[in-house]
Amino acid sequence: MSLAVINYARAMGRWEPNANGRLVRAALELYVERGFEGTTVAEIAKRAGLSERTFFRHFADKREVLFWGSAALQELLVRTIAEAPASTAPIVVIGMAIEAAGVQFQEGREGARLRQTVIAANAELQERELIKLASLATAMDEALRQRGAREPGASLSAQAGIAVLKIAFEGWVNGSDELDLPTMIRDLFEDLKDVSAGR
Amino acid sequence: MSLAVINYARAMGRWEPNANGRLVRAALELYVERGFEGTTVAEIAKRAGLSERTFFRHFADKREVLFWGSAALQELLVRTIAEAPASTAPIVVIGMAIEAAGVQFQEGREGARLRQTVIAANAELQERELIKLASLATAMDEALRQRGAREPGASLSAQAGIAVLKIAFEGWVNGSDELDLPTMIRDLFEDLKDVSAGR
Repeated sequence: MSLAVINYARAMGRWEPNANGRLVRAALELYVERGFEGTTVAEIAKRAGLSERTFFRHFADKREVLFWGSAALQELLVRTIAEAPASTAPIVVIGMAIEAAGVQFQEGREGARLRQTVIAANAELQERELIKLASLATAMDEALRQRGAREPGASLSAQAGIAVLKIAFEGWVNGSDELDLPTMIRDLFEDLKDVSAGR
Repeated sequence: MSLAVINYARAMGRWEPNANGRLVRAALELYVERGFEGTTVAEIAKRAGLSERTFFRHFADKREVLFWGSAALQELLVRTIAEAPASTAPIVVIGMAIEAAGVQFQEGREGARLRQTVIAANAELQERELIKLASLATAMDEALRQRGAREPGASLSAQAGIAVLKIAFEGWVNGSDELDLPTMIRDLFEDLKDVSAGR
């Protein structure tokens, strides 16, 4: 396909290879450059080379661009928990799920960093992030109970998993490029064992 | 003092015994009766027998009535951590702080229940609650580090403490009248030890 044809199709708004990814990237760039408040949907769409209509086919508003991955993340966590071998201890199951999430973040390191910069600068976005994390804990708790884990072990494991994810993610996103998030997560679950025992 | 004098002083807005407590109680009652959204500051002030001006001397807005205790709670947690005997393990220090918080909640059980009913019915208030809990975790983490605790032990202990508080509080506030929150908190820290070890 020649460039002219691609541009024509783009202008018509019908040819949208990975429109979602382009919108996310454009939005993150603009949020970092101009701030979240100072960016409009029109500007995001323009930078992505797409129409506003296309934007709204993918996202309810400009805030949702930052959280579009959270449904997929929840699915990954719940699936990993459901598929873990029977008789695995709840905290080990949660460790597998959080590590799987860590692998995903590690693969999208640059985007994760940009996103974090934007969220850290805006109180409303931080609230939203906390709500999403609380939902993930609830979903993991439920997934554990569905495989027979009992309370309070299921809640404690799920909440501990989110605590590990928060601490590991913060160290990773603000740390040097060499850091490996899945390894940091594994180490923190080991630390948690010692810490909880008062060592 | 005769009743007439009291009423006169009230009308003048100068005599306000425990105005704070009366406003909190009036607000909680109205939020439960009419919903948080459906209640105005004027109605709260009227039910408390105080003026709107008095309301705004005590609270920035009607949301803050629900969170006015959080500064005192944070102080209690930080003080308990600072005053714990040296060489006490971080998770044990956090256990002491969270249990002290539990004692306070236990003493104000009725108010805690009303407050929880209101917050559970409103997404925005839930976000606010999560932000406050996250701030408490940060404050406890800092208080631990000030007494020499190192990372990641300090963060893990602080986050685990908040996890225990959330789980214990939810069970207590929704459970029977006989439940004792401080005991539930102690038990959960024991459970956490087992859960983290994969037992």
